[in-house]
Amino acid sequence: MKIDAITSRDNPALLRLRKLSSEPGGYRKTGSVWIEGDHLLRAARQRGWTPALVVATEAALQEAALRALAESAPRVLVVPAALFKTLSGLESPAQIGAELALPAAAAIAANAASVVLDRLQDAGNVGAILRSAAAFGVRQVLALKGTAALWSPKVVRAGQGAHFGLSLVEGLAADDLAALAVPLIATSSHTEHVLSRVALPSPCAWVMGHEGQGVSPALMARCALTVGIPQPGGEESLNVAAAAAICLYESERQKA
Amino acid sequence: MKIDAITSRDNPALLRLRKLSSEPGGYRKTGSVWIEGDHLLRAARQRGWTPALVVATEAALQEAALRALAESAPRVLVVPAALFKTLSGLESPAQIGAELALPAAAAIAANAASVVLDRLQDAGNVGAILRSAAAFGVRQVLALKGTAALWSPKVVRAGQGAHFGLSLVEGLAADDLAALAVPLIATSSHTEHVLSRVALPSPCAWVMGHEGQGVSPALMARCALTVGIPQPGGEESLNVAAAAAICLYESERQKA
Repeated sequence: MKIDAITSRDNPALLRLRKLSSEPGGYRKTGSVWIEGDHLLRAARQRGWTPALVVATEAALQEAALRALAESAPRVLVVPAALFKTLSGLESPAQIGAELALPAAAAIAANAASVVLDRLQDAGNVGAILRSAAAFGVRQVLALKGTAALWSPKVVRAGQGAHFGLSLVEGLAADDLAALAVPLIATSSHTEHVLSRVALPSPCAWVMGHEGQGVSPALMARCALTVGIPQPGGEESLNVAAAAAICLYESERQKA
Repeated sequence: MKIDAITSRDNPALLRLRKLSSEPGGYRKTGSVWIEGDHLLRAARQRGWTPALVVATEAALQEAALRALAESAPRVLVVPAALFKTLSGLESPAQIGAELALPAAAAIAANAASVVLDRLQDAGNVGAILRSAAAFGVRQVLALKGTAALWSPKVVRAGQGAHFGLSLVEGLAADDLAALAVPLIATSSHTEHVLSRVALPSPCAWVMGHEGQGVSPALMARCALTVGIPQPGGEESLNVAAAAAICLYESERQKA
């Protein structure tokens, strides 16, 4: 492990990481992602990821647990807290972060239980859905073009580490889903199939649509089944991440 | 209905609304809330609310549907789009908004199905939970001190209109929940009770805890039951709004 003390804002590595921390789709150019905080770094390590580079403050390296995390990288940059702050998207910046090289885009696994994201806009929703997918053991997430960038800093933060155990494929067209052999299921308020009463196929791919517009007609036409979540409260509708959690839960409940 | 054309940034009503749109807890001083956009205003109207004041752009009042919404208020301020923007918390400001007087704080209804929020921090989570509560017909939401302000602009936006059909009580201490006659239920990963296999009492009060710390020990001690949501994916955990949606869904499923 090589440790360098850095005091210049213009250090080339810091310039690169600053871009990654501020541009939602920056990782698409570099093939690497900046993650902030020991929680995310620990989650990545637990899933077998090795950071390419760790950036930490002097104070962080005084703590044994954080120092051990830093030492998992071949190279560590030690920076003043004020400089770390320039890499941070948080109001209370962390003291440690890492650059991780992303794996090459995976092919779609035809028979894997999946979640399909159709142009979801909100980073918090996307991150929460990745967490639910990971929690329920659904390891493949397929994002259609127009969905928030899956490895953007906001989605990674909302994902709380879920990213590192998932196979994520993004930038897909609806036609690319022909590679999936498992049936697609969408939620709809215009269906007679009640989620809890229909026998859900397993494995399946749950399709979650745009926050305002829902699932596109082209994608809806590919769905083998639509199901409704009974909402006795009336005309209100569920947040898409809430709906996703319920569908994934129900799939699991029926299997158990 | 009285219509005034306003061009001054310093108009007293606009000064008040600007504060309401930028201060999360501003409504606690004025007893009124600023809501932005025709969707929220329509949702309020559908639940029988009457705006005290509507602010709209000239362009908005050219549209029949928006004009009809505006005319539900005793007073309408017509402002240039640039001035409306100063009241907006959105990247793409709406063209219409309203000030609504909040009802006096309700007493806790002892026998009502409820959701209890214990120091939830994230406005998006709180708003999503209010939506789920409304969708599943759980009309009483009780927030303990330290929870994000329920009527803050961010929570109202995330709630998508759910607020107007709910009875919201906030600023509570754990001891105040003694007024509830229905049993409290919390989720926990340290329990042998599996959510889908335990007979849930109905009505009940679902307790949702702080994003990092979970439910406080004092509140946990008041719970009649703790249940676990099986998460076969491993160590990952669900976002609190996802967990709330699942619990409310399961309560409803068991009733049906």
